[in-house]
Amino acid sequence: MTAPLRAPGGFPVVGIIGGGQLARMCAGPAVELGVTLSVLAEAPDASAALAIPSAPVGAHTDVDAVVAFARECDVVTFDHEHVPSDVLAALAENGVPMHPSPAALVFAQDKLAMRERLTALGIPCPRWASVRSAEEVTAFGDEVGWPIVAKTPRGGYDGKGVRVIGSTQELSDWLERAASDDSPLLLEERVPFTRELAVLLARSPSGQAAAWPVVETVQTDGICTEVIAPAPELDEQLAARATEAGLRVAGELGVTGVLAVELFELPDGEFVVNELAMRPHNSGHWSMDGAVTGQFEQHLRAVLDLPLGSPRPRAPWTVMGNVLGGDHPELYPAYRHVMARDPELKAHLYGKAVRPGRKIGHVNVSGTDLADLRERARHAADYIEGAVTE
Amino acid sequence: MTAPLRAPGGFPVVGIIGGGQLARMCAGPAVELGVTLSVLAEAPDASAALAIPSAPVGAHTDVDAVVAFARECDVVTFDHEHVPSDVLAALAENGVPMHPSPAALVFAQDKLAMRERLTALGIPCPRWASVRSAEEVTAFGDEVGWPIVAKTPRGGYDGKGVRVIGSTQELSDWLERAASDDSPLLLEERVPFTRELAVLLARSPSGQAAAWPVVETVQTDGICTEVIAPAPELDEQLAARATEAGLRVAGELGVTGVLAVELFELPDGEFVVNELAMRPHNSGHWSMDGAVTGQFEQHLRAVLDLPLGSPRPRAPWTVMGNVLGGDHPELYPAYRHVMARDPELKAHLYGKAVRPGRKIGHVNVSGTDLADLRERARHAADYIEGAVTE
Repeated sequence: MTAPLRAPGGFPVVGIIGGGQLARMCAGPAVELGVTLSVLAEAPDASAALAIPSAPVGAHTDVDAVVAFARECDVVTFDHEHVPSDVLAALAENGVPMHPSPAALVFAQDKLAMRERLTALGIPCPRWASVRSAEEVTAFGDEVGWPIVAKTPRGGYDGKGVRVIGSTQELSDWLERAASDDSPLLLEERVPFTRELAVLLARSPSGQAAAWPVVETVQTDGICTEVIAPAPELDEQLAARATEAGLRVAGELGVTGVLAVELFELPDGEFVVNELAMRPHNSGHWSMDGAVTGQFEQHLRAVLDLPLGSPRPRAPWTVMGNVLGGDHPELYPAYRHVMARDPELKAHLYGKAVRPGRKIGHVNVSGTDLADLRERARHAADYIEGAVTE
Repeated sequence: MTAPLRAPGGFPVVGIIGGGQLARMCAGPAVELGVTLSVLAEAPDASAALAIPSAPVGAHTDVDAVVAFARECDVVTFDHEHVPSDVLAALAENGVPMHPSPAALVFAQDKLAMRERLTALGIPCPRWASVRSAEEVTAFGDEVGWPIVAKTPRGGYDGKGVRVIGSTQELSDWLERAASDDSPLLLEERVPFTRELAVLLARSPSGQAAAWPVVETVQTDGICTEVIAPAPELDEQLAARATEAGLRVAGELGVTGVLAVELFELPDGEFVVNELAMRPHNSGHWSMDGAVTGQFEQHLRAVLDLPLGSPRPRAPWTVMGNVLGGDHPELYPAYRHVMARDPELKAHLYGKAVRPGRKIGHVNVSGTDLADLRERARHAADYIEGAVTE
């Protein structure tokens, strides 16, 4: 494996395991910070490999590849949560500094571990249960009321590994698999939330932490499609309590780097935690243009234990619209159109081939008129996708 | 030469000749725009080569290397003005789209050609003369008043190739060289300017143009050390006339990409043009953080004939401070210090080894209190350089 070319002056190399768009979007901030990135990419044309000079190809499940990669880096972080525990253990044995640490990361990898820990900390969660049998599913559903939410503890993302069920019968395939794997399932009550929120913050190994304003996230078919920063008409007390909970989770779990805490806002003005992610997160893409310090720069600063930057918003409102793959593979002509229509639009493309429903980019717009910003972000995203043509 | 890896979706490849920091700072915006960069770098560890995956090594004076490089790109642009005319001619013969075109670029390469053209257009210039003999120097000095400014028409930058002379005698070496090269020298009156300003704009091949606010540039020993955007207390009429002159120069000369027009502000409220640069320019580094569209993104949009982005400032004031190389080669510890002191500071490092006086980075700060911003930018730049230690 060729070592990444280091910049002179004592600047470190940050290794990222996984070559998706989250690794890719670290590229610009790393260039400006003067630090070198190296990405362990799943393919030579992975999203991040198109953007970062040092991008050896290797699987995040291949212990030897990951350890060889990490030896050339001063610190290692992650594009996703899917690095298996044996690989993380091998990295630890080799003395590789990792942020987040495996001890923290497990709470983003395993939703059951997360529920147990957050409950022990007194962080508000939906009622939940760890189950292995049909009887336990029925008992939980009867207790909290049907329908309920079933989750595979590991491996889910973007709505995958999550199922809303109205009866135990609907979970029979998962229960069979859980029995053969000897692994439990997570059940949660289906909370009657009014909207979804997210707390995004960064925490450094020294313990410094900085939180962005609480945002509203809009999901469509389990995929985030829009983020509004800050969350409109959010009760200040709720925002403060949610941020405090996020900071407490980060501190108690020893999270280093960016932490996203997805929340449900409840009709009574309370919240419960939905999910945790320990990496830059879709709910923070707005910050690339909308905050003094964007989440990708902040993640790099945090994992390097550099002083954190200000998360202050640059404008009253920023709206992020995700661009999903549509029917036509040629994005560039549509892209020209949205640029011409809106000179203030900030487009971010991931260098990924179009597949229907795949996240291939996002747009940000900042300003003072929220309704106008939402219309502009939505139109641009829809136009690039091909969902609208004028 | 290995072809740069193209992103799917019809996104183009932009080739940049020269691997300095101006090419490097295109890296982040290119990643976000989804376009691929390829850089013809002077060395494998050139500033831009550390940041851009496709960075073949070759000299900008080597016709074969440059043509082979350009064949893999959809459009070619420049990190500097030093590509010789025979290389540009070879590119043109090979049908390579270049922005700026050689026909425009000559006015940034050759200060005599620039003075002739601007004078013909009626753009305000200092009085000037093209001279070859000591007699002509004496006559010009006696006419406009000593001291005068002598310039080599080609090859100067950062104060190099410029000399202020009090007598013809002080120019004897240049006159000898000019005689042996059969090339004239440029003489200019030394205008009693009150300060230096710069108009920065971008123009696309379709003719769309967008100008940032006029800025004040502060030079120390011929090197830009500070930029204030917008120029404080600038007369609105003067700002409008200067911007209009810049846009007219861009249109008349057929400039494509970013154009910087350096100006002297005169005591009577008028201005004269000092220099032209046809590429992103030090006077525009503030825009990376201080404007909706930074100059590197805008340059890429312009050379691709994409619609231009808004040059609107994001804050009332942005101050840029250049970081010059100092006595100690290890920048990283100092860098941590300035980050801790000022969480809103945006640092940009170029991945270059420290040499005294060399431009190795810059910092930007935006806000409402200009005096405070200037102090913060200056302190951070001085601290990284090692000029101050607390």
